Amino acid sequence: METMDAILTRRSIRKYLSKPVTRDVIDEVLKAGMNAPSAGDEQPWHFVILDRHGLLEKIAKMHPYAKMLKEAPAAVLVCGDESMQKFRDFWVQDCSAASENMLLACHALGLGAVWLGIYPAEKMILEVRNLLSIPEHVIPFSIIAMGYPAEEKEGRFRYDVSRIHDNAW
Amino acid sequence: METMDAILTRRSIRKYLSKPVTRDVIDEVLKAGMNAPSAGDEQPWHFVILDRHGLLEKIAKMHPYAKMLKEAPAAVLVCGDESMQKFRDFWVQDCSAASENMLLACHALGLGAVWLGIYPAEKMILEVRNLLSIPEHVIPFSIIAMGYPAEEKEGRFRYDVSRIHDNAW
Repeated sequence: METMDAILTRRSIRKYLSKPVTRDVIDEVLKAGMNAPSAGDEQPWHFVILDRHGLLEKIAKMHPYAKMLKEAPAAVLVCGDESMQKFRDFWVQDCSAASENMLLACHALGLGAVWLGIYPAEKMILEVRNLLSIPEHVIPFSIIAMGYPAEEKEGRFRYDVSRIHDNAW
Repeated sequence: METMDAILTRRSIRKYLSKPVTRDVIDEVLKAGMNAPSAGDEQPWHFVILDRHGLLEKIAKMHPYAKMLKEAPAAVLVCGDESMQKFRDFWVQDCSAASENMLLACHALGLGAVWLGIYPAEKMILEVRNLLSIPEHVIPFSIIAMGYPAEEKEGRFRYDVSRIHDNAW
């Protein structure tokens, strides 16, 4: 899939076929995540593959917008590691770029995916940390739910000329 | 360019030809930015096109890592608007996803680009706000410097299996 097409036609997909997502495919998605830019190339991230149904169901119950995890064949938890930062407080931007790369990779690989925010919601961070035994210096950041799509959505064009300014506000 | 290729071969490009980047091309990059996902589809962003040489030179002098702006034909300042948020404190993630889409779009369009962080550096935020008359509720977030590349870099594969965890830490 062409890059601009992927960017312009990507949508949040929350309904999935029961067809499994193989570890090879998840690995492609992780390659995309880890090739994101980061401040000073600090790469302050970790990725927890989630493909045990019982675990996905538990997270679905914890998170107000994660009901789709009950039916999702797989998800990846993106975490930020503050101890790996070269530039203070840039890890959120780095993990966001990784998350976006993963969404685009999913779309290009024929998967549907959605970005579920965890950070900065303290309660969610704590609950996910406890469930998955994430160490204190590592912060659960986002969950990318994924599966072969069981819903079709047209590209939604968000371009808005009123948001563009010319050499000053 | 294929999406996975774009993701895996994108590098930070800091040297540019003097060839101008037309407004049509910048518009394509902005389409990519505005099609990023955002929390609750809040789209809390603004974009300031910077292609006046004097202005780019001023920013190059303010910012410790922005010397390339002296020679860059264009740049876009990405800003976050806290007043447009539906979900508190998610605007940083939204603007990061927009910035990453713009970098990938630049690469796919044959441009070289680099992401210069502004937020959360207070001094930089203030200086850029003053220079461009950005209102108080809008936060200068990142600058995407761009131009036709005058340096070649091979794709750098950052995949690291030690960052991958299986259904728990």
